[in-house]
Amino acid sequence: MDFSSFITSLLTSFLIFVVLILIFTWLSRKPANDVIYYPNRILKGLDPMNGHRTRNPFSWIKEAISSSEENIIDMAGVDTAVYFVFLRTVLGILVISGILLLPILLPVAVTDINTTLTKETNSNGTFNNLDKLAIGNVQNKSPRLWAFLLATYWVSFITFFMLWKAYKHVLELRSSAQSRSDVARPEQFTVLVRDIPPVPHGQSRKEQVDAYFKRLHPETFHKSLVITDNKEVNKKFQKLEGYRKKLAHAEAVYAESKTASNPEGTRPSCKTGFLGLIGSKVDTINFCNENIKELVSELEREQNGTIKDKQQAAALIVFCSRPAATLASQTVHSPTVDSWTVMPAPEPRQLLWSNLPIPFYQRQIRQYIVYGIVFLTVCFYTIPVGFFSAFTTLENLSKYLPFLKAIVDLVEIKTVLEAFLPQLALLVFMALLPMFLMMLSKAEGIPSESHAVRAASGKYFYFTIFTVFIGFTLGGSLFDNLKNVGKHPDQIVTMLGDSVPKVAMYFITFVALKFFVGYGLELSRLVPLIIYHLKRKYLCKTEEELKEAWAPGSMGYATRVPNDMLIVTLSLCYSVISPLIIPFGVLYFGFGWLVLRNQALKVFVPSYESYGRMWPHMHTRIVAALFVFQLTMIGYFGTKAFVYTPLLIPLPFLSVIFAFVCQKRFYQSFAVNPLEVACQSLKEAPNLDSIAEAYVPPCLSSVKHDGTEPV
Amino acid sequence: MDFSSFITSLLTSFLIFVVLILIFTWLSRKPANDVIYYPNRILKGLDPMNGHRTRNPFSWIKEAISSSEENIIDMAGVDTAVYFVFLRTVLGILVISGILLLPILLPVAVTDINTTLTKETNSNGTFNNLDKLAIGNVQNKSPRLWAFLLATYWVSFITFFMLWKAYKHVLELRSSAQSRSDVARPEQFTVLVRDIPPVPHGQSRKEQVDAYFKRLHPETFHKSLVITDNKEVNKKFQKLEGYRKKLAHAEAVYAESKTASNPEGTRPSCKTGFLGLIGSKVDTINFCNENIKELVSELEREQNGTIKDKQQAAALIVFCSRPAATLASQTVHSPTVDSWTVMPAPEPRQLLWSNLPIPFYQRQIRQYIVYGIVFLTVCFYTIPVGFFSAFTTLENLSKYLPFLKAIVDLVEIKTVLEAFLPQLALLVFMALLPMFLMMLSKAEGIPSESHAVRAASGKYFYFTIFTVFIGFTLGGSLFDNLKNVGKHPDQIVTMLGDSVPKVAMYFITFVALKFFVGYGLELSRLVPLIIYHLKRKYLCKTEEELKEAWAPGSMGYATRVPNDMLIVTLSLCYSVISPLIIPFGVLYFGFGWLVLRNQALKVFVPSYESYGRMWPHMHTRIVAALFVFQLTMIGYFGTKAFVYTPLLIPLPFLSVIFAFVCQKRFYQSFAVNPLEVACQSLKEAPNLDSIAEAYVPPCLSSVKHDGTEPV
Repeated sequence: MDFSSFITSLLTSFLIFVVLILIFTWLSRKPANDVIYYPNRILKGLDPMNGHRTRNPFSWIKEAISSSEENIIDMAGVDTAVYFVFLRTVLGILVISGILLLPILLPVAVTDINTTLTKETNSNGTFNNLDKLAIGNVQNKSPRLWAFLLATYWVSFITFFMLWKAYKHVLELRSSAQSRSDVARPEQFTVLVRDIPPVPHGQSRKEQVDAYFKRLHPETFHKSLVITDNKEVNKKFQKLEGYRKKLAHAEAVYAESKTASNPEGTRPSCKTGFLGLIGSKVDTINFCNENIKELVSELEREQNGTIKDKQQAAALIVFCSRPAATLASQTVHSPTVDSWTVMPAPEPRQLLWSNLPIPFYQRQIRQYIVYGIVFLTVCFYTIPVGFFSAFTTLENLSKYLPFLKAIVDLVEIKTVLEAFLPQLALLVFMALLPMFLMMLSKAEGIPSESHAVRAASGKYFYFTIFTVFIGFTLGGSLFDNLKNVGKHPDQIVTMLGDSVPKVAMYFITFVALKFFVGYGLELSRLVPLIIYHLKRKYLCKTEEELKEAWAPGSMGYATRVPNDMLIVTLSLCYSVISPLIIPFGVLYFGFGWLVLRNQALKVFVPSYESYGRMWPHMHTRIVAALFVFQLTMIGYFGTKAFVYTPLLIPLPFLSVIFAFVCQKRFYQSFAVNPLEVACQSLKEAPNLDSIAEAYVPPCLSSVKHDGTEPV
Repeated sequence: MDFSSFITSLLTSFLIFVVLILIFTWLSRKPANDVIYYPNRILKGLDPMNGHRTRNPFSWIKEAISSSEENIIDMAGVDTAVYFVFLRTVLGILVISGILLLPILLPVAVTDINTTLTKETNSNGTFNNLDKLAIGNVQNKSPRLWAFLLATYWVSFITFFMLWKAYKHVLELRSSAQSRSDVARPEQFTVLVRDIPPVPHGQSRKEQVDAYFKRLHPETFHKSLVITDNKEVNKKFQKLEGYRKKLAHAEAVYAESKTASNPEGTRPSCKTGFLGLIGSKVDTINFCNENIKELVSELEREQNGTIKDKQQAAALIVFCSRPAATLASQTVHSPTVDSWTVMPAPEPRQLLWSNLPIPFYQRQIRQYIVYGIVFLTVCFYTIPVGFFSAFTTLENLSKYLPFLKAIVDLVEIKTVLEAFLPQLALLVFMALLPMFLMMLSKAEGIPSESHAVRAASGKYFYFTIFTVFIGFTLGGSLFDNLKNVGKHPDQIVTMLGDSVPKVAMYFITFVALKFFVGYGLELSRLVPLIIYHLKRKYLCKTEEELKEAWAPGSMGYATRVPNDMLIVTLSLCYSVISPLIIPFGVLYFGFGWLVLRNQALKVFVPSYESYGRMWPHMHTRIVAALFVFQLTMIGYFGTKAFVYTPLLIPLPFLSVIFAFVCQKRFYQSFAVNPLEVACQSLKEAPNLDSIAEAYVPPCLSSVKHDGTEPV
C-alpha cells in the first residue's frame, strides 16, 4: 500500500464519518425520530431530551462525557458499565503507551536510514515516507533498536498495570451491585438443579424433587418448580398471540377505513392458506376471533397436560433466604457426579429453557463436538467459502437460474458482478458467522443466555485472530515476497522482517475504516431508522406493532467484544513495530467510548444482567493479545539480527504468570457468589411467591392465575 | 546380563526369601515376640493368636486369604482396604493379560529367528536362550508382529476395564464408610478457616471469628477454636514429658536395685549438662521432681499466654450438625480470595498445626518453589550424589580423617571400600529422599498429614519413574551401543529396538529381588525385632518405654505406593516386549497382597484415616504407566519397521480420554463430601463439646480442664 492510497482511504473513511454525523445531527432533532434515538429513555419513562428542548447538535457529546458510572449502571446495567471499563482500560493502555512511544520511537526511526529499504523503494519515492516512521527504517544490529526493545517492556508493563487496576475496579462494581440491599432479585433465592435421577415408582417428579430437598434442607426449602417440556404449549401460545396481534391489526385497519366518505368502513379480509397467499378468503376479524376462542381452550388443555405429563429432569428450587440459596448452590449434593447437579439459578429472562433438561454426559459430549466443529471452522473456513464461490460464477448462475441470463449478459453489469461475486461468499459467511457461533454455543447445553454469549464471543475471538490477523500477516508477507524468496531462500527471514511494517499500513486503514464508518453508522442508526419508518408507513397499525418496530435491542456483546478485541490485538502487536497505529487505536476506542456512551444512555436496552461476568474473558483475551505481541517482537528482533533479543524472552512468561495470578486472585469472585455478600440484610422481606412466579415462562403463566398451577 | 547370572540372581533372592520365611515361622511362635508380630491385635485388646494357641506355621496364610474386606476395614481402616484394592487391581490386570499373552506371544517369538540377533550373540550361545522368548527374536516387518500389536490393545483394554471397576468399588467403600451412622467423627462437624484478615481494633481474634461466623451462620454455628502458635508451649510440654519419663525410668531403676543383698538400693544419678555427659552429678529422682514442679507452673503460664496472645489467622469452627458443616465447608465466604478461606477440617490427629496459619499468597509461592526444587532434584540428582562421591574417595578420607588412615591402608579393606564407596552416596541419597520429599511437601503449607503423604508420594513417583525407568532404559541402551553407533550412526534406531529386551532381563531380576527380599524382610520384621529386643534389654525400664519400643507404626504409603507404582510401570511397559516379566509382576503383587494382608491385620496401626483419598492418585498413575507403555510400544514397533504401527496411535489418546472421563465421573466424590451423605441421620445426638475437645492439641489440653480455656 503506497502513501497516496493510504491517504485516500483515510480521507474517504473520514468523509463518510462526517456525512453520517451530519445526518445524525439533522435526524435526531426531529421528535418523530425520538423512538429511534432515545428508546431507552422512553422505555424507562423518562423525557427523551432530558428537559431541555433546545437541540444543541453537540449536546450529546457533553452528556456522554459528563455521565458517571452510576448513570450507566442505572440506565444500562453493570454489564454495560463493565464494557466501558474495558474501553477505558484499552484507551488508557494505548494513550500511556503512545505518550512515550510516539515522541521517542518516531524520531529514532526517521533519522536512521535502512539501506536495503531505500534501495528497494527507489522506484516510488513516496513509499518510504510512511515506512520511515516505522522500525523497518532502522538498520539491522543498530543500537537504536534498544529504544524499541525498551518500548516493548513499557507497553507490557503499562498493560499489566492497567489491567490489574481494571480488574480490581470491576470486582468492586460487581460486589457493590450484588450487595445492594434494596432489591431482592429472584435468582438470589433460587438454585437450578439438573440431572435429576429417574422418578421412583409411584411418585411424581415434583414429589421426588420436593422430598429430596425437604430432606436435605428441612428448614430453608420453600418450593420447587419442575422444568417442563414447553415446545408444544409454546407453539400454541405463539399461535394464539399471533392471532391476537392479527385481530388488533385488523381492527385498527377497519377503524381507519371508516372515513367520512365511507362511514361503514371495509372489513379487512385474508386468505386462510399458506402465508395468507392461497386458500379461501374470509373476514379477518371473525376468523381471528373464532381461532382465538378455539386456541384459548386448546392452550389451557395443553398447559395442564404439560405441567402434569411433560415434567423434565431439571428443576428450580426456591429457598427462604439468600444465604440458604447461596449455601445450597455451592454444595455438592449427590455422591455421583451425574445426578442432582446444583448451580446458582440464572436470571429468569436469561434461562435457555430447552437446554436445562439435557443430561450430564450429553452436555459433556455436546461440548466437545462443538469445540471440534469450531476448530474445523477456524482452520478450514476457506473450504465452504471457496465451494460457494465456485458455484456462484457467472456461468453457473446463468446456467442454473436462466431468467438472470438477460441481465448477466449486459456488459456493464457483468463487469461489476465479476468483481463482486468472489467476495460475496466471504461476505455472506462473515455475516452468518456470529449467528452460527451463537447457535453452536447454545447447542453445548449452556443454561443461560449470558453464558452462551460469552462462549460465542470466545469462539468469534479465536476466529478473527486466526483468520484476519495471523492469516493476513503471514499470508501477506509470504505472498509479497514469494518470487524473491524463490531466488534467495536464505533471505526469507530478512524479508519477513521488512514486510511486517508494510502490513501495518494496511491495518491502520482497517482500524480507521472500522471506527469512522462503523461508529458513524452506529451513532446515526440509519438502518433501524429506515426500517422503522418503512414499517410504520406500510405495516404497523397498532401501538404494540409500532413498539416492536422501534425496539432497540441490546448491545450485542457476542460480536462487539471480539471485534474490539481484534483492534486491541492489532494495536498492541504493531504498537512498537509501527507506532503510528497507536493514535488510530486511540481514536477507535475514544470514539467508541463516546458514541457507545450515548447509545448506552439513550438507545440500547440490555436483555440481561450478568454483573460483569464478561470481564474475566475480556481480561484474559487482552493478556493473550499482549502475549502474541511479545512473541511477534521476539521474532521481529530476531530478523533484525539484534543480539540483545533474548532480553525479551522473560516477557511472554511474565504475561502467563500475570494471567495466572489474576485468575487465582480474582476469578473465583466472578464464578461464585460469596456467602458474605448473600448475607447482607435486605431492606424488606422478599415475597417468595413472586420470586417463584418470576420463573414461570409466559406460555404457562396464565395457569398460575387460575390456581391450577401445581407448584 | 546373560542367562547364568539371571538364574544366579533369581536363586539368591529366592534363598534369602526362604531363610526369612523360616526365621519368621520360628520367631513368631515365641510368645515373647507377640508385640512385634501382633501389635495391632494387642493394641486393639484382642488375643494375638485369635484363640488357637497351636501354632501352625502356615496358618497366617490361611488367615490372610480368608479375611474379608470388612475385616481389613475394622482392623486397619478404609485407607488400607483401598490399598488392597490397588494391589488386587494390578494383580488382576497382570493375571488376565498373562493368561492370553504368555501362551500366545512366547511361542510366536520363540519359533522365529532374528538373523541379526543370532549373528550378534554367536560368541555366547546362552545369551539368546532368554531373548528368544521376547519380541527381539521376531524378524523385522514380520507378520508375527500382529500378535504383539493386538497384545498391546489387549493389555490396554484390560487395564481400562479393571481400573473402572476398581474406581467404582473404591467409591462405594468410601461412601458407605463415610455414611456409617453409628459414629460422629469430629471432622464431620468442623470447618477449617484460614487467611483470617487482621483483627479489627478493639477486638480479639476470637471475638472477630465468632462475630463473623455468627453473622453468616446464625443458627448453626456452635463454637470456634482459634489456632495458636504452639511452638513455645509445645517445647515446654515436651520438656515436662521428658522429665516425667526420666523420673519413671529412674524410679524403676531404683526399685530394681533394691535386691536382697542391697535392700536400700542405689539411688540413680545423672549429670545436668549437655546430653547428660558433662556438668555436676545430681540425684536423678530429686532432680526430676524439682524440674517437673517448676515446669508445671511454667507450662501453665505459657499455656495461658499462648491462648491469649499467640492467636493466629486460622481457626476451626464447630457447627451444630453435619449438613451445616458440609454446606459451610463448600461455600465461598469472602468476596476476596485471600481472606476467610474455608475448607473441610481434617481429622484432629492429621492436622499439621504449624501450616494452618500460613497466608494464602505464601502458600502459593511455597508450592511453586517446592515444585521447582523437586524438578531440579529429579533432573540433577546426580550432581549432589557425584559431588559426595568425589569427596568420599579413599584419598580424601585419609586426608581429612587421618585416624582412618591405618585401617584404609590395609589391602583387603581397601579393595572392599573402593568397590563400595561410589555406591555409598547413592544409597545415602535414596535413603534420605523419602524424608526430604515429605519435608518438602509439608513445606508447601498443606494442612493435613494425609494430603502431605499424597503429595510426597507423587513426588517420589516422578522421581523413580524418571531416574530408574527412563534413565536406565535409555541410558543402558545407549551406553551399550555407543561404540557401534560411532561407526554406523544410521543403525541407532535398530539397536535401540534390539537393546530394549536386554534391559528387560535386568528389570525382571530387579522385580524378583524386590519381592523376595523386600517382602521377606517385611514379613519377618527382623529390624524392628532386633531393635525391640536391644531396647528391652538395655534401655527400657517402664511399661511406657516398652510400649514405645514395639510401637508398630503405619504402612508408610508415601514410599510404599511409589515403589509399587514403579513395578506396575515396569510390568506394563515390558508386558508385550518381554512377556516373561508378567509372572514376576504377578508374584510381586501376589506375595505383596498376602504378606501385607497379614501385616495389616496383625502389625501396622494406621496413623490417620482419609477414606481412600489416595485412590485417585494411584489410579491416575496407573493410567500414566499405561500411557508410557503405549508410547514405548509405538516407538518400538517403529524400530521393527512394522507398517501397521500407526494402528497403535489411537491408544495413548484413549488413555488420556479414559483418565479425563474418570476424573470427571469420580474425582468430585473424593474431593468433597456430598450433602446427601452428610444428611444421613446419626443414631445418637453428638456431644458437640467433646468434638471441640478433640481438636485441642495435647500441649494445651490441660488448660481445658482447668476451665480457663477461652473457647
